Amino acid sequence: MSKMLNVFETATWLKERDGFLVITHRRPDGDTLGCAGALTQGLRECGKTVFVLDNPEATPRYKRFVEDYYAPDDFEPEFIIAIDTASTDLFPRNADKYKDAVSLCIDHHKSNTGYAELVCVDSDRAACGEIVFDILMTISGSISSATAERLYVALSTDTGCFSFGNTTGNTLYVASLLIEAGAPHRELNKLLFRTKTHSRISIEGMLLSGLEYSFDNKVAIASITLKMMEESGADEDDMDDIAAIPSSIEGVGIGITIRELSSPNDCKISVRTRAPYDAQNICAHFGGGGHKLAAGCTMEKTVDEVKAALAEVLENVFS
Amino acid sequence: MSKMLNVFETATWLKERDGFLVITHRRPDGDTLGCAGALTQGLRECGKTVFVLDNPEATPRYKRFVEDYYAPDDFEPEFIIAIDTASTDLFPRNADKYKDAVSLCIDHHKSNTGYAELVCVDSDRAACGEIVFDILMTISGSISSATAERLYVALSTDTGCFSFGNTTGNTLYVASLLIEAGAPHRELNKLLFRTKTHSRISIEGMLLSGLEYSFDNKVAIASITLKMMEESGADEDDMDDIAAIPSSIEGVGIGITIRELSSPNDCKISVRTRAPYDAQNICAHFGGGGHKLAAGCTMEKTVDEVKAALAEVLENVFS
Repeated sequence: MSKMLNVFETATWLKERDGFLVITHRRPDGDTLGCAGALTQGLRECGKTVFVLDNPEATPRYKRFVEDYYAPDDFEPEFIIAIDTASTDLFPRNADKYKDAVSLCIDHHKSNTGYAELVCVDSDRAACGEIVFDILMTISGSISSATAERLYVALSTDTGCFSFGNTTGNTLYVASLLIEAGAPHRELNKLLFRTKTHSRISIEGMLLSGLEYSFDNKVAIASITLKMMEESGADEDDMDDIAAIPSSIEGVGIGITIRELSSPNDCKISVRTRAPYDAQNICAHFGGGGHKLAAGCTMEKTVDEVKAALAEVLENVFS
Repeated sequence: MSKMLNVFETATWLKERDGFLVITHRRPDGDTLGCAGALTQGLRECGKTVFVLDNPEATPRYKRFVEDYYAPDDFEPEFIIAIDTASTDLFPRNADKYKDAVSLCIDHHKSNTGYAELVCVDSDRAACGEIVFDILMTISGSISSATAERLYVALSTDTGCFSFGNTTGNTLYVASLLIEAGAPHRELNKLLFRTKTHSRISIEGMLLSGLEYSFDNKVAIASITLKMMEESGADEDDMDDIAAIPSSIEGVGIGITIRELSSPNDCKISVRTRAPYDAQNICAHFGGGGHKLAAGCTMEKTVDEVKAALAEVLENVFS
């Protein structure tokens, strides 16, 4: 059974200890890697010894904010800290050995399983970075530009540059302080939100040109085939948030993205809806799950077979 | 010769007077219309009589934030206020008669010509809405949710939801206060930044699929023909920021958008660059102008002829 700490207690706990190893989650995003980098940088500025455990899945987009802090092989940590990681199932492979030894978990996921001895969780925060900011400010009263840069990455990427529904007044307030502290927000915004790779542009063009509308334009279906991936040269980084496109179209209540995985008979289906349509309900028909507005499932079918299977379920939704 | 007022002096001037008519600029955006709505709403809450002059070019996207304040035909204003409008050349037609009678201009454009008797201009602000916020807070110490909503529209649209390079710490700080004051930022963000029309999606698909790269992928050229406009059903609202797409591609230094206007022999060319490339320099060859990173020109040529003409200039840029 873990013990809940508030920000002040967490700051005090960190101040009184030393020798930390920070763990990030699988399929790492800007929040987990940005927070790990910021916490490490901020604590080092207070004289602490802190490293980040190498995340083998870190992509070039975010790796540069954390790789300088990767722990050497011979580092023997006193305390393990997991960041932005709701459960030990999300630990990268190389963190397996720490699953039962996490001292502190700092997180903003409501679904946090409480696997750590101490947890500082606030699910009202859009980004875990908001909590790390509060902790570091409580410890030292200021943050450096290097720390601010990493926290800005955390906040901005978890909120789609402050456009997602999770953004709060506090998110923007903290972001304003990060800019005042020297976060290079112009360069970061350009890099993270206003630059697309050649391959992303290419696959997005194919996706948009191939959109299919049905049920009086209330349904939009995008398909991403292995052939499209190959022709465009797109990789996983390029697929970021691509499933949000069909549901972002005016008037569309159900946006569906069908993507061929390892073979044309193996498809991943992402469903995004606007109220009153229920994404979870649709995916439950195929053994999938998720939330009311975003859910997913897989089918061992071709794209055309998936469309036919979905059409049957959608007939019921609209009848 | 106009007199400069600071925010406090502007607030005092407004408090001591009554009977205002607010003028917005041609091709009105979220900043001018949002500010006009916010200033009117905020001053009315202080008991003032204020109306906005009907802007005949207001599009459905932003009109709803201002049309309830449109002045009746028989309104006789005491004082004319121009907002976010750098020169009287930008006045809508129906404001012609006020060109020499503007008492106060509130603006954030460095290029403001000083046509008003009194000017409150701060070119360090990303949006004029930041200045209007300061003025209204100085007058009454708080703002209503209706005022906050309109100012949020002003700030967020002028900064691409806080992603453009003009965004500052103050922009985010004011935005955080607007959210605290009740601005419905979730609905506004969804509407303004995360929803695209069917026709925008359609023309964007065509544009992306037709992108042409040259000069070792340092140049990307998009073409928008009248046929594409017709097939997609796109209107002017749909073309918002579309010229930013080619230059948003990783590695592209010069992004060019060629658009057929009234006929296939009449093209508008938008050039966006990243340093060290100079957009103004390129457009100057064709009698156009603008800034170092964004410039434009028109040519009485077909799209293919425009490409050939540009290629000659680009040869020099890269030689």
